[in-house]
Amino acid sequence: MAAGRLRLTLAQLAAAVSERSGGRITANIEGERERVIDAVAPLESAGPSELTFLANVRYRNAVATTRAGAVVLSAADHAALRPATSVVVCEQPYAWFAFAAQVLQRPAQRTPGIDPTARIDPAATVGADAWIGPAVVIEAGANVGTGCWIEAGSYVGKGVAIGADTRLYPGVRVLDDCTIGARCIVHSGAVIGADGFGFAPFAGSWIKIPQTGRVVIGDDVEIGANTTIDRGTMGDTIIEDDVKIDNQVQVAHNCRIGAHTVVAGCVGIAGSAIIGRYCQLGGAAMIHGHITLCDQVVVSGGTLISRSINEPGFYSGVFPFMSNRDWERNAAVVRHLRELRERLRALESRLGSALENKDPS
Amino acid sequence: MAAGRLRLTLAQLAAAVSERSGGRITANIEGERERVIDAVAPLESAGPSELTFLANVRYRNAVATTRAGAVVLSAADHAALRPATSVVVCEQPYAWFAFAAQVLQRPAQRTPGIDPTARIDPAATVGADAWIGPAVVIEAGANVGTGCWIEAGSYVGKGVAIGADTRLYPGVRVLDDCTIGARCIVHSGAVIGADGFGFAPFAGSWIKIPQTGRVVIGDDVEIGANTTIDRGTMGDTIIEDDVKIDNQVQVAHNCRIGAHTVVAGCVGIAGSAIIGRYCQLGGAAMIHGHITLCDQVVVSGGTLISRSINEPGFYSGVFPFMSNRDWERNAAVVRHLRELRERLRALESRLGSALENKDPS
Amino acid sequence: MAAGRLRLTLAQLAAAVSERSGGRITANIEGERERVIDAVAPLESAGPSELTFLANVRYRNAVATTRAGAVVLSAADHAALRPATSVVVCEQPYAWFAFAAQVLQRPAQRTPGIDPTARIDPAATVGADAWIGPAVVIEAGANVGTGCWIEAGSYVGKGVAIGADTRLYPGVRVLDDCTIGARCIVHSGAVIGADGFGFAPFAGSWIKIPQTGRVVIGDDVEIGANTTIDRGTMGDTIIEDDVKIDNQVQVAHNCRIGAHTVVAGCVGIAGSAIIGRYCQLGGAAMIHGHITLCDQVVVSGGTLISRSINEPGFYSGVFPFMSNRDWERNAAVVRHLRELRERLRALESRLGSALENKDPS
Repeated sequence: MAAGRLRLTLAQLAAAVSERSGGRITANIEGERERVIDAVAPLESAGPSELTFLANVRYRNAVATTRAGAVVLSAADHAALRPATSVVVCEQPYAWFAFAAQVLQRPAQRTPGIDPTARIDPAATVGADAWIGPAVVIEAGANVGTGCWIEAGSYVGKGVAIGADTRLYPGVRVLDDCTIGARCIVHSGAVIGADGFGFAPFAGSWIKIPQTGRVVIGDDVEIGANTTIDRGTMGDTIIEDDVKIDNQVQVAHNCRIGAHTVVAGCVGIAGSAIIGRYCQLGGAAMIHGHITLCDQVVVSGGTLISRSINEPGFYSGVFPFMSNRDWERNAAVVRHLRELRERLRALESRLGSALENKDPS
Repeated sequence: MAAGRLRLTLAQLAAAVSERSGGRITANIEGERERVIDAVAPLESAGPSELTFLANVRYRNAVATTRAGAVVLSAADHAALRPATSVVVCEQPYAWFAFAAQVLQRPAQRTPGIDPTARIDPAATVGADAWIGPAVVIEAGANVGTGCWIEAGSYVGKGVAIGADTRLYPGVRVLDDCTIGARCIVHSGAVIGADGFGFAPFAGSWIKIPQTGRVVIGDDVEIGANTTIDRGTMGDTIIEDDVKIDNQVQVAHNCRIGAHTVVAGCVGIAGSAIIGRYCQLGGAAMIHGHITLCDQVVVSGGTLISRSINEPGFYSGVFPFMSNRDWERNAAVVRHLRELRERLRALESRLGSALENKDPS
Repeated sequence: MAAGRLRLTLAQLAAAVSERSGGRITANIEGERERVIDAVAPLESAGPSELTFLANVRYRNAVATTRAGAVVLSAADHAALRPATSVVVCEQPYAWFAFAAQVLQRPAQRTPGIDPTARIDPAATVGADAWIGPAVVIEAGANVGTGCWIEAGSYVGKGVAIGADTRLYPGVRVLDDCTIGARCIVHSGAVIGADGFGFAPFAGSWIKIPQTGRVVIGDDVEIGANTTIDRGTMGDTIIEDDVKIDNQVQVAHNCRIGAHTVVAGCVGIAGSAIIGRYCQLGGAAMIHGHITLCDQVVVSGGTLISRSINEPGFYSGVFPFMSNRDWERNAAVVRHLRELRERLRALESRLGSALENKDPS
């Protein structure tokens, strides 16, 4: 891949990062301003033309010995770790690195146009500069924005609206009447707008509740591979701007996910749950239906949230892992915790009587 | 969407619901029998031509103030909540509402036929009035029933049989020899009949067990988006009539799911598990392999069922969530529960000796 | 399906199994060496021309009464269970049965060639004897090995390399630059090489970290339906030889899974986790990011592993299930475990003082 790469000096890269951030991020270069950089790489494998950063505190020791052309660090880490290489010192090293990686990436190019095997209904609209891949189907009334890429085998249902510069990777399905904003990325196998799961019991069988709402997705949203977001029963399922959803996530009918919230892989969100803004749901967290999480709630991976949360904060609830032998012993006691508490109370009471000196509990 | 909607008076709607239920459900209209209804809508947003109902007890307060044209309620709720609007009073308001929503929905229409980009093997059979979409593949020996819709990009393998009026949404895969009954709905990305997961260890490597069984699905089954149901190793994986399975569910080889059972999103069912009739598995519940759940077992979301259940009932097992700080403190004790019990026993014993008055425990 | 089956005597089958194993597995036939076998079947339904085995210890009682033509057993089980039928006695009955099932299976045949609806870029290479199905897309620079089957609707991105005799079932997506070894099987709906989930916070929004690494998959790997394996951020996500991954699994960016490891359905592995060789992750187990599991770690289904494991062994951590009523009572105590321990300590202390005889705790 190196053939097509950009080659920039550190000084040029810093200028490009500043520009890309709208002038909101700046950095000082300690070392060779003329060092040529053409890629990003992990700390342990980066070479002399590559930029790296400290991805996780566990890797601090590797900073001193990195062979990278340059490393992005906070002033404090720079002072503490003193790498032998050039350093980009800035207040938000992770963001600076992200912008730099975007600058250095030469994204895949698509010549605008429509593959001859795509099936586009005459009553659909495709914007200028869009690219529509092989075996894509776009149904009547759909409106695909300018600059969109709709990749191989994707499906865009009747009346769907997709904003400018949004990209559907191969094999995405967007069902009838859903809308997706601008600059979104939807990864392969995602399904937007399947029926919500609603049935009424009647005479020993299940009667289907027609699912007539939509999925409405804002701008700058990313949706992971094989994630599913169901349409509303009545009313819509809503994903607000800048929400980022990982792979294998299930979002049920009539949920709302607030702007800037991040949902890690394998999460399940049951029907009509309302998730606030700037929340973070850890991998495989599960959210019950018909509850509300306020803004800035962080949920640990694997935690089931069974009632509303009204205070921002960090919430957890996972059985700690241990050797299977220890687990068997401890789990057996879990079944009798209430008894244990009763026995403790009884002891406290008896000891209190015996000593004529009662506990306050 | 409003353009194509039906417009019915409440009296006409009640008659249509009764007819659709085979005369098994009836209702009294309190208020304007001539009120025109053209859609269903949620309590809080329903307007004067819309029908609504009480979806969840949390929303009871909204009944009094709804602007809906009519609301469906039980006699008890009607008496207690006294909405200002017209009321459809019936014994099973959720079922009545479901039938009404079906009546009011004008379902999408497909002109029967076969898209020119579909690849249908000459040795396959497609019933009258079926619709076969673009880029669909139907292999030799397959039999697609009358009135089916096989939507864009779906795959129907060799020897597959699909009953009348079943609908595969875009991008469904049904692998060789599986069968699906009549009036089923399979949502996008579902995979029916991938290989079960079976390997024998031998000399440090894994030897694949050929998976030669099928998936056999009854009538009136609904299968969610991106759900996977594996074929049997030998013998079949069986989904009985009127089973409803949500999105992102995994059903392993040789499972059997009894009629009328409901499986919520993200559930996993391991190999050879037998689930009874009228069971309900909550979201992300996990069922071990080679166990049996009798009829009418309800499992809470997130619960792992590790052995057979022989009594109908409601089962749970989830670590309760709390602030991360509290969780860290409490989880640390979980690792020592058995010690705690031992210490409690020792105390009971010592106190008993001291007081010459033993506990029965 | 019986029409096309092989028919072999037990003696012929034993010879074929020995050959298929490279002479590494042998067996003694007790009973009719000339018994004709044409299929494998479960213990309870096997008929006189079918071979069966003891799949699970729960089914031991069924061995005595099986109507199978022959059953594969260890010497110990043979001695203990004494079935009336012929017996293949061997040291590794499960492996012998697996080889026998492979011998008896007559696998589906594909005439090599390229379906006219496949879109193969002129700058891609397709090996001899490969079969490329309808609506397949193969992009520039891709290299599909000899003997591969790329089934209907699958997608092979730019620069992808796929080794000999690998099979992609219908609807698999392999994104740009990923590599898959020889003799792999990838089931429908799997997505290999979607973007990892990486965003830097900046000024209230999320800045995407370009995901420029690959997924690199070894030989003899099997990947389940709708499983997702993300490309590395920088550097690669690596799946070593003979790894077996079930359905609905999520493997995040920059993970490494060691050779011969088995990953059951619905597992999630977070970013940069390193899993050793010969590990077994039970269904719905979750592995945190940036941790390491050494070789031969077995994790129970549903367990969340939150820190590195350096000792081979069997690890668990799941809340035991019980009736919902019992659960509510016991779960309430879980929130107060630390208090309970404090109260116990206080009692021990008070009783120690009272009796002038302190506990060691």
